[in-house]
Amino acid sequence: MPRFNTVAILGVGLIGGSIGLGLRRRGLAGRVIGIGHRKESLRVARERGAVDEATVDVAAGVAEADLVIVCTPVGRIVDDVRSAAANCRAGALITDVGSTKAEIACAVAAGLPPGVAFIGSHPLAGSERSGPAAAEADLLVNRVVVVTPDETARVEDLKSLVDFWSSLGARVVRMSAVEHDQALAATSHLPHLVAAALALATPREVLALTASGWADTTRVASGDPELWRQIFASNRAAVLTALVRFDETLAALRAALERQNDDSLRQILAAAKERRDAVA
Amino acid sequence: MPRFNTVAILGVGLIGGSIGLGLRRRGLAGRVIGIGHRKESLRVARERGAVDEATVDVAAGVAEADLVIVCTPVGRIVDDVRSAAANCRAGALITDVGSTKAEIACAVAAGLPPGVAFIGSHPLAGSERSGPAAAEADLLVNRVVVVTPDETARVEDLKSLVDFWSSLGARVVRMSAVEHDQALAATSHLPHLVAAALALATPREVLALTASGWADTTRVASGDPELWRQIFASNRAAVLTALVRFDETLAALRAALERQNDDSLRQILAAAKERRDAVA
Repeated sequence: MPRFNTVAILGVGLIGGSIGLGLRRRGLAGRVIGIGHRKESLRVARERGAVDEATVDVAAGVAEADLVIVCTPVGRIVDDVRSAAANCRAGALITDVGSTKAEIACAVAAGLPPGVAFIGSHPLAGSERSGPAAAEADLLVNRVVVVTPDETARVEDLKSLVDFWSSLGARVVRMSAVEHDQALAATSHLPHLVAAALALATPREVLALTASGWADTTRVASGDPELWRQIFASNRAAVLTALVRFDETLAALRAALERQNDDSLRQILAAAKERRDAVA
Repeated sequence: MPRFNTVAILGVGLIGGSIGLGLRRRGLAGRVIGIGHRKESLRVARERGAVDEATVDVAAGVAEADLVIVCTPVGRIVDDVRSAAANCRAGALITDVGSTKAEIACAVAAGLPPGVAFIGSHPLAGSERSGPAAAEADLLVNRVVVVTPDETARVEDLKSLVDFWSSLGARVVRMSAVEHDQALAATSHLPHLVAAALALATPREVLALTASGWADTTRVASGDPELWRQIFASNRAAVLTALVRFDETLAALRAALERQNDDSLRQILAAAKERRDAVA
């Protein structure tokens, strides 16, 4: 029996919609309530079977929820967690699915009403697609979900949240919000920055001569510019630090190329291949 | 009726093997002769049906060929074209499938015996896989093949070569070897350099927190280090020029991030998305 009978999902896009679909297909919640600003997204989410009920009224939507999952863009999460918290019943747990964690956790911690708890989450299951039409019930299966409890988090809330993500098929990893942000700066935010720079550095007149290598390397640059601006803005220092590491590695490659140092070039490329091949 | 009755393929790896498979499945050549240094690759190529005959003897293998396709690594192409040319009959045409064209064309032009012609080709159909086991009869279908005739190329040779690649399903684009190398520096070689730097700049301890974005962006870094070293070495100046353009774009992103200039950051990300989305 899941602890969360009523689950409210604030923001029914790709991630929120997929969580709803996953819960309903698996029978993991008594009720799934979708909350959103745009009626069209709510309509699609309901048609897809991602939610039982849909509303544009946050206060009404979260009132009976045992768990509220805030799935809005990073730049909106703090406000949305606050308005959910102000309208939750005592004992409710709130989480989010934002790509950055420290700034959000810090801002949220200050304003929680008594009896309402918040623990951040981040499912590593992004996509250049978006919206409830792209939702999939199995989006989180075998994906990593990072949970970032702070020192005030209650053991039972953390356990419930870990069980919740596990029930959707995810592998749950626990770490601090700051550790999360440093890691994701390297594994997600820097790759996005580099892919964007690479796409834009490709002259328009040679785009016809791109093949799968260019397409793969630049794929994430198709992501929503405003969503990604918010992510970068929310993890500025860690991204700039990751960028320094990237600069050093690229400088070593450039130096080997400029000096026609074949041994060094081969060694760096071999080390890069080894690092890449360490991930399936 | 194809002009090329006997086709010799020197190097039966992914590309050479795929060309052989494509020719044989479509009945486009009377005989396909595979030539290689490694008996094991030749055995696999024959088992896969990529060649009718196989030999380690270049002179014997090319003796009766109407068309010789050199599919060896970039650093070996010049030598292999020369040894093929020295043993071809008069009227034979030689091409290659190397990822760089100018250096090869220049080196080859000097030493061709009378009656033997060379026109460079580059099928944009690489892969991080390699070897004849990975060969596919349809590898070139809807892919671009660039052909790079110099001013000495005969019209009928060029036409035959264009028809040859077209018969395998490819879209043929013609340009000079130098234009090719500048374009590919931007669309293929720079992305590889950047992907390698990105993979290597990712600390080992956060690899468990990578997702599809990192996997896509770094995929090409799995390519063979020695093959890619040869490609970079053979197109050094153009790669360094493309790298300057990349540096400028990345510097603009960095500046926007450092100065917390949200408008600029969003604009650059939007321009990058537009450039990326211009390619399907």
